[in-house]
Amino acid sequence: MTGDRSIGEAAPEADQSTRKGRGRREQIATIASGLFARNGFDGTSIRDIAEAAGLTKPALYYHFQDKEALFEHVVAERMGLLIACVRKAAEGSDDPIEKIRRFIAGHARRMDRERDAWMISRQSFLSLSDEARRKRVNGLRDEFEHILRDLLAGAMQAKRLDHADPAIVARLMLSSVNDVPRWLKPGGDLTAGDVARTYGDIVLRGLGAEIPLR
Amino acid sequence: MTGDRSIGEAAPEADQSTRKGRGRREQIATIASGLFARNGFDGTSIRDIAEAAGLTKPALYYHFQDKEALFEHVVAERMGLLIACVRKAAEGSDDPIEKIRRFIAGHARRMDRERDAWMISRQSFLSLSDEARRKRVNGLRDEFEHILRDLLAGAMQAKRLDHADPAIVARLMLSSVNDVPRWLKPGGDLTAGDVARTYGDIVLRGLGAEIPLR
Repeated sequence: MTGDRSIGEAAPEADQSTRKGRGRREQIATIASGLFARNGFDGTSIRDIAEAAGLTKPALYYHFQDKEALFEHVVAERMGLLIACVRKAAEGSDDPIEKIRRFIAGHARRMDRERDAWMISRQSFLSLSDEARRKRVNGLRDEFEHILRDLLAGAMQAKRLDHADPAIVARLMLSSVNDVPRWLKPGGDLTAGDVARTYGDIVLRGLGAEIPLR
Repeated sequence: MTGDRSIGEAAPEADQSTRKGRGRREQIATIASGLFARNGFDGTSIRDIAEAAGLTKPALYYHFQDKEALFEHVVAERMGLLIACVRKAAEGSDDPIEKIRRFIAGHARRMDRERDAWMISRQSFLSLSDEARRKRVNGLRDEFEHILRDLLAGAMQAKRLDHADPAIVARLMLSSVNDVPRWLKPGGDLTAGDVARTYGDIVLRGLGAEIPLR
């Protein structure tokens, strides 16, 4: 599977041509990402992507087997970055409640910066017809969600939150936060981060955490 | 605009042929609804709908101008029923908190019964290219959301909930509740209604309502 290194970072042993190939692959992925976000998976053809990348269709197929492979690559890479971001955010505190708040803030920060990635990930459950690909993307999504569930379970065990099903609480938080870019106008008074933090705090208060409402 | 009467209910003055036409129109809408839910707007053609309804394409166009008109009809009708359902549910109590809980329960009940309608309404912001149609559907969605906002504002004014922006709280509730059918497996231990009620109660507790956690 690809995406185990960050964008543009070649393996140390890579020769010049592999490094170039890798860079080209990521360029294509970035271009495709913008097209998928604007026009949807169904509304974006391999021809559109090839044209935008200044490539012939055969040249594009040299890098990616088909449109779904490219789509999976884009989704998996963005999910990988998101997972790294929220892990790091949560590690920034030892307090069980603060860890959850930092997870939410980290997630929302990425949504504020990467609206394209969000638009795409919304489509992924409809667009991947290949079972193995769908499983890999769902696996990453589960990994992300389980980080939050574990943080919630930890705070409940530490008696900092009332007991509830961590899976249900995680869904409550993520469903609401993930939906913010759909309705929030960019450039307004509130950022996705502001809204997400308010959501997170209301839910944490609902489980007994003592946090003032902003 | 269509949809000002409930399904199959002909106007009293309607003659036999109008009544038949209306019934046929609703039959087509029901069939299209199932196809849109299963295959998406893009994945459903007028030919598919005509075939499933046992009609020729011209006969279908007699009832609906184009695929978007049919789609709008389906979405608008379902939204109308949902609005009527939550209004009635909220009217069933005089208590400001209980009104909100009944709104949520009523909404979730419809989701449990009408998974098709939910699948379709998720697509509507991507599928309607016509500005006027999009506006009409968004108008209904706003009407629905404002019922909840007003209930929240009422409970805040009555000092039964801590002060917060009712629009943000309504979005928190609706985004999370609307997402339930995406991940909840039908036939499991929990219904969409169970999950929605838990969500609603956690959020209400987060604003200071004294409700036990289930």
